[in-house]
Amino acid sequence: MAGGELVLLDFWASPFGQRCRIALAEKKLPYDYSEQELLGAKSDLLLRSNPIHAKVPVLLHGDGDGRAVCESLAILEYLDDAFPDATPRLLPSAADDPYARARARFWADYVDKKVYPVGTRLWKVKGEEGVRAAAGARGELVEALRTLDGELGEKEFFGGEFGFVDVALVPMMPWVYSFARYGGFSVEEECPRVAAWARRCMERDSVAGSLRSPEEIYDFIGLLRKHYGIDD
Amino acid sequence: MAGGELVLLDFWASPFGQRCRIALAEKKLPYDYSEQELLGAKSDLLLRSNPIHAKVPVLLHGDGDGRAVCESLAILEYLDDAFPDATPRLLPSAADDPYARARARFWADYVDKKVYPVGTRLWKVKGEEGVRAAAGARGELVEALRTLDGELGEKEFFGGEFGFVDVALVPMMPWVYSFARYGGFSVEEECPRVAAWARRCMERDSVAGSLRSPEEIYDFIGLLRKHYGIDD
Repeated sequence: MAGGELVLLDFWASPFGQRCRIALAEKKLPYDYSEQELLGAKSDLLLRSNPIHAKVPVLLHGDGDGRAVCESLAILEYLDDAFPDATPRLLPSAADDPYARARARFWADYVDKKVYPVGTRLWKVKGEEGVRAAAGARGELVEALRTLDGELGEKEFFGGEFGFVDVALVPMMPWVYSFARYGGFSVEEECPRVAAWARRCMERDSVAGSLRSPEEIYDFIGLLRKHYGIDD
Repeated sequence: MAGGELVLLDFWASPFGQRCRIALAEKKLPYDYSEQELLGAKSDLLLRSNPIHAKVPVLLHGDGDGRAVCESLAILEYLDDAFPDATPRLLPSAADDPYARARARFWADYVDKKVYPVGTRLWKVKGEEGVRAAAGARGELVEALRTLDGELGEKEFFGGEFGFVDVALVPMMPWVYSFARYGGFSVEEECPRVAAWARRCMERDSVAGSLRSPEEIYDFIGLLRKHYGIDD
């Protein structure tokens, strides 16, 4: 492995952290996993490594605390950039296909803007105003899932082969199934090709070894709802 | 120039479009400029090129309608990737400095999340609830500007030399001065080093030729407030 040691600061249920775990597993890069508190006091290491957002995931690379790379999509790009011999690449190289890189970045950005934050608006609701907001979020989320279904089409993976957009989206799927339970819609009905694609992704060791079941995520959201005082 | 012709679909006041104009000017890449409607009917070309968001900027590259690259940061990366001989690069190459690339992506993402959308919450306010929301946005925006001031520190540009983060942030500055008028704070007082950096950036032809004055942007926000029914 080029450079020093890798450490991933993460939290078990984080879809953003799971992106990094999948990428590290695909590339067969050994690393130490450091589980962080989500709701309790943040560790000194996390605050030192990501002083701006104080959020997981953070990838430390090098001796001592190492260089800290923050934000999951930047971590995915960093793994391609810093370990060019650790294949598969998640994005094609700039020399090979700059346009495919731009498209993949577009769709990963779409996932970041339209899936997780909208789904969060669906379950993090309180009072009457919250119920109205949740109805709006439900419509937005279903539209985003249909859009992703259209973009996937009959392809096996978003970029043809398993890559950047797949790694960005697939850890959202156990969350999406939970959002669908809160929103009262069916993932299979609204985006059948995405549902089948998620099952194909789960056949990969990298994905199966990084994701948790929709039931575990649903229970975890239940805990969060209690924590935020939404449920008793 | 490698590949076919370049066309930029843009709108004069868009800070996201201005990023692309600055990058194209820095790299001395010739292109056709296609001004789009912001508030009126969208052109067929825009709807065809960016069916997902129907927003500027879009960079078309190639014959006919060309390949459409959407989202301003993806366009900046594309220009580095697709035109490796058109220097200066905005990001160092992956082989040269993968960590600097990750840091630049982090800070550009920070600008996208913390500056423009928060500033928009500051002026797009209606009624009593809006005034409360604006007070919160004011605090968040000032905090973000102070954070950027700390990150810049005594450096001439964010990455040392003029590059990705400078191109991402500098077109926000005429907007930031307008946000400050709505929020009742002083850019010079809250982030003096960023204010001085913005003046240094304006000494570059690429920036001076792409940006509009804070007064023009302030007047334009006034038009938007009328359009959205906030002011009579």
